[in-house]
Formats: sequence, C-alpha cells, structure tokens
Amino acid sequence: MKIKIAQFGLGPIGVETLKLAATKPWAQIVGGVDIDPAKIGRSLTEVTGIKGLEKVRVYSSFAELAKKTKPHVVLHTAVSRTKTAFPQIEPMIKAGVSVVSSCEELLFPQLREPALAKKIDALCRKHKARVLGTGVNPGFVMDTLAVCLTGVCRTVESIEIERVVNASLRRMPLQKKIGSGLPPDEFRRLFRENKMGHVGLVESISLIAHCLNWKIGKIKETCEPVIADHNIKTEFLEVKKGLTCGIHHRAEANDGKKTLVLDLKMYLDAKDPRDAVKIIGDPPIDSIIRGGVHGDRATVAALVNAVPNVLRAQYGMLLMTDIAVPRVG
Amino acid sequence: MKIKIAQFGLGPIGVETLKLAATKPWAQIVGGVDIDPAKIGRSLTEVTGIKGLEKVRVYSSFAELAKKTKPHVVLHTAVSRTKTAFPQIEPMIKAGVSVVSSCEELLFPQLREPALAKKIDALCRKHKARVLGTGVNPGFVMDTLAVCLTGVCRTVESIEIERVVNASLRRMPLQKKIGSGLPPDEFRRLFRENKMGHVGLVESISLIAHCLNWKIGKIKETCEPVIADHNIKTEFLEVKKGLTCGIHHRAEANDGKKTLVLDLKMYLDAKDPRDAVKIIGDPPIDSIIRGGVHGDRATVAALVNAVPNVLRAQYGMLLMTDIAVPRVG
Repeated sequence: MKIKIAQFGLGPIGVETLKLAATKPWAQIVGGVDIDPAKIGRSLTEVTGIKGLEKVRVYSSFAELAKKTKPHVVLHTAVSRTKTAFPQIEPMIKAGVSVVSSCEELLFPQLREPALAKKIDALCRKHKARVLGTGVNPGFVMDTLAVCLTGVCRTVESIEIERVVNASLRRMPLQKKIGSGLPPDEFRRLFRENKMGHVGLVESISLIAHCLNWKIGKIKETCEPVIADHNIKTEFLEVKKGLTCGIHHRAEANDGKKTLVLDLKMYLDAKDPRDAVKIIGDPPIDSIIRGGVHGDRATVAALVNAVPNVLRAQYGMLLMTDIAVPRVG
Repeated sequence: MKIKIAQFGLGPIGVETLKLAATKPWAQIVGGVDIDPAKIGRSLTEVTGIKGLEKVRVYSSFAELAKKTKPHVVLHTAVSRTKTAFPQIEPMIKAGVSVVSSCEELLFPQLREPALAKKIDALCRKHKARVLGTGVNPGFVMDTLAVCLTGVCRTVESIEIERVVNASLRRMPLQKKIGSGLPPDEFRRLFRENKMGHVGLVESISLIAHCLNWKIGKIKETCEPVIADHNIKTEFLEVKKGLTCGIHHRAEANDGKKTLVLDLKMYLDAKDPRDAVKIIGDPPIDSIIRGGVHGDRATVAALVNAVPNVLRAQYGMLLMTDIAVPRVG
C-alpha cells in the first residue's frame, strides 16, 4: 500500500518537497493546502507543474482537504516557530494524521515551548499520530549527524560543529535573509530584534545535549555580520566592500565541564564550504563533509526521506534522534 | 533503575567492554561468563581488575549465571559467525534477556544465515528479547554512518566507502590477523580457505542495500595482500620488504544501475588513515573522518552505547539502522 501524502504550504520549498515526494514509488500525493487564493481549487499539476496530479486539488485548509481524503502524512513547510505551527498541525494530529515539518523550532520544541511540546505529544498519543521537525539545518548536519558520530565514542568531552555555506551558490531568498548589503549596525539591530539570524541553532544544541544527557546551562548565542572584503556580485544581487555579506551565528553551551559549540557561517563568496564535526573524546572524531551539504536540496530530501521512518515510529512528538537512522527513501 | 549487564566472553575485547560498561552511571554489572577454568568461580575484580566487582562472579555458562541473577542485557563478545553465536545466545533469548553482540555476522544475519535470523527473530518476539550485532566495523563506519548520510540525499546513484587503518598503531592480535610477514601466495591461499580477511564486509554492504531497498545481485569480493615496500618494525613484530604487511579487502555490488563499493585497507605503516564515505547523488556527499575511527576503542564504545537504545527498541532481531540514532551513553 502506498503512503498517502498531502503537502501543506506551496511556497518554493513546499513545491520542491512535493516534487520529490511525487517521484517516490512508495508515495501517493492526495492533496495540497495553501492560503493563496490563486492556488486554491486548482489542481496540483496546474500549481506545481508536476505531471499526474491533474485530479489532485489544492484546498484552503487541512479541514477542507480532510473532507475529501485522509492522508497518512502531511508534509508541513510553512513556518519557523512552534506556536505558529501549532494551530496548523493541531487539526492534522486530531485527525490521526502524522506530520513531517520543516518548522525549525519543531526539531526540539521542548526548548522554547515546553508546554506546547507536551500538548503535541499528548494529542499525538491520544489520536495515534506523530509529529517530527526535520531538515538539513536544523535536522541533520549540526545535530543528528553529530549525535550519530558520538555513537563510537567511549567518552565525549566536547563537540565543535562548524558549518560554512557559500551563499553565492544559493537561491535569492537566502542571499537576502543573511542580510546581504546591510550596513553592519543595521544587521546588529535586526538581530537584537529577532529579525536576523538562523532559526534552529539553539534547537540543535539543545537536541544534542538532550541525547547526550548533558545538563547544559544558558546557551550563549552571538550573531555578527560577515563584512564584504571586496565588491561582490552574485546572480541576484551586489554587495559593496564594507557592507554585510552574510552571517556568523554561534551558539555555545556547557554542563560545567563538557562544551558544545555550534558555529554557522553563511556568506557570499565563502571559501571552503564544509560541514565539520570535531569531537574531543575517546576516541576523538575529526569529521568533515567537504563542500558541505547543499541546504535547500538536502532539506527537501530530509523531509521526504523521514516519512517512512516516522510511520514506523511510535505515536508522539518525535525527535530525529528517537527514530530509525535516516536514509534515502 | 540501573540496567543490569552481564558480560559473555572475557577475552581482551570482553574485558575492555566490561570496563567501559562499569564506568556508566546507568549500568550495574551482575556477572560474567567464560569457558576458561582459570576464571570460572572467581570475582570479576580478580579476573579483570575492575574495582567494585569483588562480589560479582564469573560463571561457566549463561545457564549457571541465570540461576543467580537475571541481567537485562548480555554483552556478547565471543565469536564472529552467527551459527557459532546461536547456541550461546539462544538460552539468553529464551530467558527474556537482550543481547548486544560483537559477532560480525549478526550485523546482518539475513545474509549468510537467513533461517537462523528468522529463528532468532521469532524467539525474541516470543520471549520478549532483542538481539543486535554492532561494533565499529562492521556496525558503524562502513555501514550505519553511510546509511545515515544518505538521509539528506534526494537520490543516490552510488556509494563508495573507504577505510584505511594504520595497523602499526593497533594491538598485536590485529597486526597478526592481517597476515603480517606472510609470503603473498600464502596470504592468498588462506583467503581462499576463509582463514584470512575481514569478517563483516559483505554484511555491511548487505545492510546498506537493505536500508536503501536496492536489490543487489552477487557481491564481488576480493582480498589481496598489501606488500611491504620497506622493512617494517612495530612494537610487536617485524616484516621484511616484499612480504605481506596487511590486507586490502574489497566488496562491490550493484542493482543493475546503482553501485556500492566498500574498500578496506588495514596494513602496517599505512599512510593517511581515514574513514571516507562518498555518495554520488543529489546532493552529493563527500565525507571523511580524518585519521579514521580507532577500531578497538570504538567497538567497545559501540557495544556499550547500544545498550540503552536496544532496550528502548521493539522485541526482535534488530539492525543498527532499525533502532534510534547511535549516541554516546
């Protein structure tokens, strides 16, 4: 029997997720949900260009979709915050439908929304559903992969994770999101107002600490602009020397002795992009993915690949590290 | 409540495993089993030097141990073949005791002993036990880690895994096991007679294919001696130029289009030891652990770290990739 999948959110990432899901022999696409009136009521083929979905419609809400079909899983790509995601996924859970979400905070909702996390877990158990937040970052390179690598360590003293992304090779929204072209002080003001920086770094660090059973104190978080040291021109924009060309976002925590450091740089013309995990332990681990893992393509993959693993897991608010080892689906 | 652990097999790896387990705050060591008459009846402190186990005894069999105590888990470090392991672990399973084993074939017993694998699975479900085979290789660097890395790939065309171990830095039994000092023809004869080479490579390749749902045909396996290009002297032995100083063991399989290659070199004075996983896919992944993961220390870690994950898993013959993501315990 195929896994029936609906897509909630038909923005760029949602469409890419759906396109990938539609290629999987085990998946059957049964509907889409979006708030855009230009999409509602049309077929997914019309809206996304995916062939074979001429009879599969876009609905204005999950409730409308649920009147016509019951998916096994909803791929949810709409928001970054748990409290914004909750009203969207609550009706899915109550209908006994599992959710795989790109919502960054859902990677570890226990951090910022412990009460909501408990509520989601209780609802899932009651209605036989599962919720998982995943992606490439958060979701893999700065958390799940690092946890996995500790599996061959007798002891771990500290973990340093470094991700360097060359934003020049990424899509326009990312190039803007990292503050390209902003005066450095403007960047710093926006970070203080929670309008700049990467969502998910503190969730990643908290997930690692949770898995390793480290009682970490307050997470120290800094986010500084990367300043262009030359005039930069990408496919989409230009940045003059001296202005912001990206972010350097860093989170640190410790349990008194053991230390976790997550260091994320995403900037235009970044040299030597990579995903590195360095474990000071016995034995030590010095791991690097040369070139790094491509953000958008990998996030879409992580979402779709998680579907079979999620459906095999127990009911509840799941963590990436609770379910079976990730794999291409 | 602590996890009650017994150790089956008190050879060098068994003792190291027990030593590590004894350091874990969640573990309580309740007994040991060995066939050596010099060890039977003595305390684990006498036999292993671990403090605090003065009242914990070594028994001649699991049946004898079970008369006195019921562990939650047995750490089984005794043999490499499923059919040799089976009579040892069957009484444990029938007593409802879970088993974490270093037996290489138990990583994926479905390959060489499909009937026994089914029998173990059925016994486990009947008697509420679990069996897992793990270690660093097989168990992690050439299988579980590679599967995990595909989790952020939309598609995978081929996987090449390379492990290079500098055997000069390893213990004496490994330096001998890789054929050090043998004339090359003698090495080849021993491989043909199944007396040389690394046990587990074909299990690793089969586990990956299983996880990725690739229907691979016959596995092509080669094992050649690495020839010393200079006179080699280690802490334990000497090898003259022109004689064998290690193994180059390789397994390849494909499903018609997709290819899996596992390439293992373990030899004296090996340059640039590493664990590399190269995935040709979308996105591609080019991962390397510089220096490699230390074999013995990591195998001991993998065994002990698996214990909590195994006890949280469902009953049955488990695979490393079925249970939660590995982590340091």
